[in-house]
Amino acid sequence: MLNQQLQHKIDFKTKPLGALGALEKLALQIGNIQHTLTPSLSNPTIIVFAGDHGIVQEGVSAYPAEVTYQMVLNFLNGGAAINVFCKQHHIALKVADAGVNFDFEPHPSLVNAKVGKGTKNFLQKPAMTPAELQTCLEYGAKIVNKTSGNVIGFGEMGIGNTSSAAMLMSVLCHLPLTDCIGRGTGLNDQQLDHKIKVLTKAQQAHPNLQTPQEVLQTFGGFEIAQMTGAMLAAFADNRLLLIDGFIATSAFLVAFKINPAIKNNAIFCHLSDEKGHQNLLNYLEASPLLKLNMRLGEGTGCAMAYPIVASAVLFLNEMASFESAHVSNQD
Amino acid sequence: MLNQQLQHKIDFKTKPLGALGALEKLALQIGNIQHTLTPSLSNPTIIVFAGDHGIVQEGVSAYPAEVTYQMVLNFLNGGAAINVFCKQHHIALKVADAGVNFDFEPHPSLVNAKVGKGTKNFLQKPAMTPAELQTCLEYGAKIVNKTSGNVIGFGEMGIGNTSSAAMLMSVLCHLPLTDCIGRGTGLNDQQLDHKIKVLTKAQQAHPNLQTPQEVLQTFGGFEIAQMTGAMLAAFADNRLLLIDGFIATSAFLVAFKINPAIKNNAIFCHLSDEKGHQNLLNYLEASPLLKLNMRLGEGTGCAMAYPIVASAVLFLNEMASFESAHVSNQD
Repeated sequence: MLNQQLQHKIDFKTKPLGALGALEKLALQIGNIQHTLTPSLSNPTIIVFAGDHGIVQEGVSAYPAEVTYQMVLNFLNGGAAINVFCKQHHIALKVADAGVNFDFEPHPSLVNAKVGKGTKNFLQKPAMTPAELQTCLEYGAKIVNKTSGNVIGFGEMGIGNTSSAAMLMSVLCHLPLTDCIGRGTGLNDQQLDHKIKVLTKAQQAHPNLQTPQEVLQTFGGFEIAQMTGAMLAAFADNRLLLIDGFIATSAFLVAFKINPAIKNNAIFCHLSDEKGHQNLLNYLEASPLLKLNMRLGEGTGCAMAYPIVASAVLFLNEMASFESAHVSNQD
Repeated sequence: MLNQQLQHKIDFKTKPLGALGALEKLALQIGNIQHTLTPSLSNPTIIVFAGDHGIVQEGVSAYPAEVTYQMVLNFLNGGAAINVFCKQHHIALKVADAGVNFDFEPHPSLVNAKVGKGTKNFLQKPAMTPAELQTCLEYGAKIVNKTSGNVIGFGEMGIGNTSSAAMLMSVLCHLPLTDCIGRGTGLNDQQLDHKIKVLTKAQQAHPNLQTPQEVLQTFGGFEIAQMTGAMLAAFADNRLLLIDGFIATSAFLVAFKINPAIKNNAIFCHLSDEKGHQNLLNYLEASPLLKLNMRLGEGTGCAMAYPIVASAVLFLNEMASFESAHVSNQD
């Protein structure tokens, strides 16, 4: 009923039927989520979850592991891409230290949610213990519950985390690893071959994983697991979820396996240039708003897509109808 | 030299090489246009050119001709999609009456550039006289020259103008009409067949057109011709040109045929759902920033793309470099 009323409101705006394309779908989705014909977005926040990865020891990344903490400091100092785009669009930015191998000084934008100083190398053993996974899910939820606003974007930083994401995707989507593995921050052909070999071995080392939680515990990163917990909590609280690129979508995949209804509240922001992302979105039957050939993470796709989400709400609330504007409708 | 310096500045921002994708290309383009490592965008303005079309008498549009003037009034009253999006992004909006079949009261946002009360029906005779074309090109240039700011978006409103745009495209790109004609504001299959028949007859009625100007005079709309003149003037003044959807791109096509260098200053904002647009962009070897399945015109694609253009300038100016942020670069 509300869905029909929303559709009617959209259809009688002064434009040809369907002419606002993706914006109309967004307006319908957000109206339905908020159960209103006049939805609104308040205090949008992007949370960047950061963590280190034991698998980096195997040479799967083009950048050294210390870049994780260096980039966290860059976020806190306001110098990263996500800082620039959040400032541009008046989006609040929180950085969660889910498990970076560095001791940070306290900072107003930094949430200390450290579960460890990086995961274990999952070629040898599960990336985290069941207790660590549980803590990650709880910390993620807690961060969301302490965040105001009804729109939360999920971003990440973690050298090595395209490897984790590829593993989660391959196992949970039953797709061959070669459909899931990409160049990350910029591997060359030889390095990419090596990454595929390492991850293939790691997959063989952990057969018969049953639940999404087991898969996450085995191959996830602390930042990915906290994102999963944060997304589930944001959905439980009926917020709008902005899903960034490949890594964030892999965290969403786990959340989706735990609670498929979460998809109702999710907006997929940007198709990453990282190879596995298109396949992962296909699996989720999800269409991203943007395709700007970015592959940066940090929630940058969320920040770039936010004005489009805002446009959807604004046209629904502010555009005139054929009747109010005295414009003739289609013959 | 400047190009290399710009590329170096982009490459040493704290992100993997190329990881900002389309934004990096935009930053390079805008830096080169403005001849500086620190480009800026000032007073962005979208000009919506409106005009009526004699060809509408042949039943080529799903909406009646009076919608052109009704929508102009809607723009002036702030109720259209373009009003909402311009307000959202602090873009100034001007509406140019290039040739609407209505007498408007003066309004601060309305530029009176009326060349006539609609073009002639080009099934029977050229849409405009050579003198009218000349006036259109001059008025378009004048409107731009009276507009401040270094970014101008070009939008339009004119019931029937997908027919004009398809004719311009077919003749100037040497493409069959069926590659150029779409459903406009929403024709059904039968109406689309009729549109194709009418436009095929019109093309046969005007063989041997030689110059872009002749083609524009024969099939153009007053609003399209003024856009062409406006674009050429904006390029002459080295501004940044935001090109909206199918109609605006057809006006750009004529400008491009007159001065191919104009492409250096053009940003193609949105791939319209109107059928011919993808083919036209392919012909121009142009990649649009957005694909939101919109088909509305009015400059809405420019307004939606503007924040992305702004992001490109902002990251170039505000992001830290590897050196300034003490972040390790690739091994």
